[in-house]
Amino acid sequence: MDQQHRRRGRAARRTEAPARVVDYRHLRHPFAPQKVLSDDGVAAIHEMALRLLEELGLRVLLPEARALYAAGGALVDEGTEMVRLGRDIVAAALTSAPRSIRMRAPNSDRDLTYEEGALIFSPAGGCPNATDALRGRRPGNLATYLETLKLHQSFDVIHKLGPSAEPQDVPAPLRHYAMMKGQLTLSDKPLFVYARGRAQVAESFEMIRLAMGLPEEDFAAGAWATTVINTNSPRQIDKPMAEGIIDFARAGQLSIITPFCLSGAMAPVTVEGALVLQHAECLAGITLAQLARPGAPVSYGGFSSNVDMKSGAPAFGTPTHIRMAIGTGQLARHVGLPWRSAAGSASNTADMQAAGENHMGLWANLMANATLTVHSAGWLEGGLTFGYEKFINDIEALQTIAELCAPLASTPDDLAWDALQDVAPGGHFFATQHTMDRFDRAFYAPLVADLSNHGTWEAAGARTSTERATQIWQQVLADYRPPEGAAERGERIAAFIARRSAEGGAPPAD
Amino acid sequence: MDQQHRRRGRAARRTEAPARVVDYRHLRHPFAPQKVLSDDGVAAIHEMALRLLEELGLRVLLPEARALYAAGGALVDEGTEMVRLGRDIVAAALTSAPRSIRMRAPNSDRDLTYEEGALIFSPAGGCPNATDALRGRRPGNLATYLETLKLHQSFDVIHKLGPSAEPQDVPAPLRHYAMMKGQLTLSDKPLFVYARGRAQVAESFEMIRLAMGLPEEDFAAGAWATTVINTNSPRQIDKPMAEGIIDFARAGQLSIITPFCLSGAMAPVTVEGALVLQHAECLAGITLAQLARPGAPVSYGGFSSNVDMKSGAPAFGTPTHIRMAIGTGQLARHVGLPWRSAAGSASNTADMQAAGENHMGLWANLMANATLTVHSAGWLEGGLTFGYEKFINDIEALQTIAELCAPLASTPDDLAWDALQDVAPGGHFFATQHTMDRFDRAFYAPLVADLSNHGTWEAAGARTSTERATQIWQQVLADYRPPEGAAERGERIAAFIARRSAEGGAPPAD
Repeated sequence: MDQQHRRRGRAARRTEAPARVVDYRHLRHPFAPQKVLSDDGVAAIHEMALRLLEELGLRVLLPEARALYAAGGALVDEGTEMVRLGRDIVAAALTSAPRSIRMRAPNSDRDLTYEEGALIFSPAGGCPNATDALRGRRPGNLATYLETLKLHQSFDVIHKLGPSAEPQDVPAPLRHYAMMKGQLTLSDKPLFVYARGRAQVAESFEMIRLAMGLPEEDFAAGAWATTVINTNSPRQIDKPMAEGIIDFARAGQLSIITPFCLSGAMAPVTVEGALVLQHAECLAGITLAQLARPGAPVSYGGFSSNVDMKSGAPAFGTPTHIRMAIGTGQLARHVGLPWRSAAGSASNTADMQAAGENHMGLWANLMANATLTVHSAGWLEGGLTFGYEKFINDIEALQTIAELCAPLASTPDDLAWDALQDVAPGGHFFATQHTMDRFDRAFYAPLVADLSNHGTWEAAGARTSTERATQIWQQVLADYRPPEGAAERGERIAAFIARRSAEGGAPPAD
Repeated sequence: MDQQHRRRGRAARRTEAPARVVDYRHLRHPFAPQKVLSDDGVAAIHEMALRLLEELGLRVLLPEARALYAAGGALVDEGTEMVRLGRDIVAAALTSAPRSIRMRAPNSDRDLTYEEGALIFSPAGGCPNATDALRGRRPGNLATYLETLKLHQSFDVIHKLGPSAEPQDVPAPLRHYAMMKGQLTLSDKPLFVYARGRAQVAESFEMIRLAMGLPEEDFAAGAWATTVINTNSPRQIDKPMAEGIIDFARAGQLSIITPFCLSGAMAPVTVEGALVLQHAECLAGITLAQLARPGAPVSYGGFSSNVDMKSGAPAFGTPTHIRMAIGTGQLARHVGLPWRSAAGSASNTADMQAAGENHMGLWANLMANATLTVHSAGWLEGGLTFGYEKFINDIEALQTIAELCAPLASTPDDLAWDALQDVAPGGHFFATQHTMDRFDRAFYAPLVADLSNHGTWEAAGARTSTERATQIWQQVLADYRPPEGAAERGERIAAFIARRSAEGGAPPAD
């Protein structure tokens, strides 16, 4: 779980050779970015997106956002709420948007550098339901939300928090208190804040400053909070989303612009056409952030797959999903910005389909060199449900990928000449000194995979990896301990939350 | 299933735009080969493998093979059966080994070109057991063997046959008749022949010539039969394997040299050390083939993962497996030869572990640009069992990958300007002409993935993808029809098999 520290613990007991330390907390992509579009194809999509912004424009529902666009030189029609953006305005935004963003965490060892080449995973988020084998499928509630935070905290390969399963039993005007308190007291990873109205965003920022004892200027100097901005594809930005972009930008916090362009539904049926729309919407969101505050942290993003054309149901881990991810990476690199992608699963349960879909999405994002892969663990039913057993199985995939990020040492010793000399033809290497010196750290130790033979496995109950995962998440929750500083952070926000709760909280976005 | 023809069938009903035809039968790698070793690291492993062959040598149990090596200039110690190979002999073999091999099939549309860049899948093979949800786990028998051949024949993304689940109820001296008859009459894909003794190999070749009506010289002009040669790692080639290399080479048939170097057991515990051993054994096998007949078709190969250091059990889809595959690809390209790799699963059942392991292996082989990925569908328990439900789920993965091999068209129409113009902000693309023109062929149609929502899925029985696969393989078997020419091929070998069976068959290797 805490792989880095576990390995170090082992290492302390030995002297023969340096320990194999894979720092799961800070990963860089191990593979070169791949292409599904020619360079000309990328240029054509970029060009058509600029034309879309210039000629067709977007509907922007927030008057303040339209005013910002207009002040930046855009053509705004207040009657239709349409905003048409010239390419010069977009180009200026792309110049001022940062290439590298310091993502801060309550524990500075969890800080992340959000930039090209970084490999960051966040868990399934925004799920209205949760499910596990013991308690079944249920609407998200506070107890579940807090449990999932403990799960997220317990694995180093989960790098930042997301909105997880939503605590719907907490009244909407008070929900952001519960979510910030949960994150600040159960985890020490970078925080997520929903952009659901200005009051809730402002209060969430205030809670972070209070919990961390941060003066205003220190808060603004790093991205302590991250939100995801979903445009209403096609070509629309609603009020809370526009407010979120503006408020996060002004506070120096990170908004991740993420059109959700399901090809065939909210976007054209072709990969190239869907990418035109996604790219245009991304550029419009990034431009708004830069108009609100030049240099504000903002991320390019996409989460695009296809629908099933018979039922309209979203599909994930499909060839279209993989291609959209890789194409999005090409476009993000074309404009020079770090970017977010997503994995995911349409499956209704933690089965082979769910595993296959998520692996396809994860590898797509490796091929695409996505900076941030959202929904990397636990997402079921196209995001409608957070699955405990799926989360555990997905962590195995993420840890396997994380292992690949540590380069092979390739020292002369690794070529193992002495061992090759020592072992006779047809013999084995179990007992060689070369093996003995390395046996306890040579290989990744699986979390849920069972390598026992069929007889042993059957005698132990013939449990599937889904069934084993039930035991694992229970153990992880039983072993969970709050991170350092959690109690203090909780104390520092307690009075604020009590006072504001007594006053009725803050309204969510309308 | 027969994706190409199904798509063509659909296409015949429409005129608006060319059909999306993904030719699952002939795939090329869609991604660039990746690296886990530096170029210097590759050179160091190659150099140390040559040193191993020169200084340590291999034990070769077949006198004829030792004689061939000696005639080629190797130093042979008949007392210890050790063969030491100079680098000049290896270099000569690498010069004469072909870069491109024509893999022939009873149906010429199934012929494959075995060369760098080709992407070829063969199914789980060599399994002593088989399992499915209806009949449980059982030792492989003829009925199962024939069923699995029908499954392999029914999906175009399975490009060649393998040894599948072995018909152990057929006496060993007659088993090769049953296996050749099964392959020649139930399939029209490239054939597999076990290298289990000279008589069985010679008779298998004879059955192919008879079935296809091939004169000797036409048979020798293409690789009609393929076998896999597993060295006895470390550093040993046993009699049947050496005989196989020699006999296949002399007949112009393809032997795939595949050390099975489980890191920590039969190979050093480090990736680099295991690659030294695997590379050396490969080169020795390739050299023997070229000494038997210069220019003979022979493939570089590897199937290397790690063991669990606690139990010694083999693991698959692990970081070590992925790295070994990618490193093997680097070494194969270093010597300029096409090569085989493998996916696989240690799981005891068709669960998330099984799916995860296979996806990791498949993507490793994509990263590695493996020419042939063996065991790509249906492998369970580290190869001890062929799983019907796993086979169906794995086919979904292979078909998803196959879809990625067809490049995006990226025509101006694909940018979808008209559709983007037509759809109002916040609208949808379902009904646009652009979508209507493409809706029935825009996306991959899943085989086993269920995209229905949770309520519908639950009402339909809440079946996992493993459970749905049970229904699918039954349907595939029910729909199965023998390929063209199958009956004629069967008639042409009937007399030979009857006569030889009456004579007691041919002895397997001792």
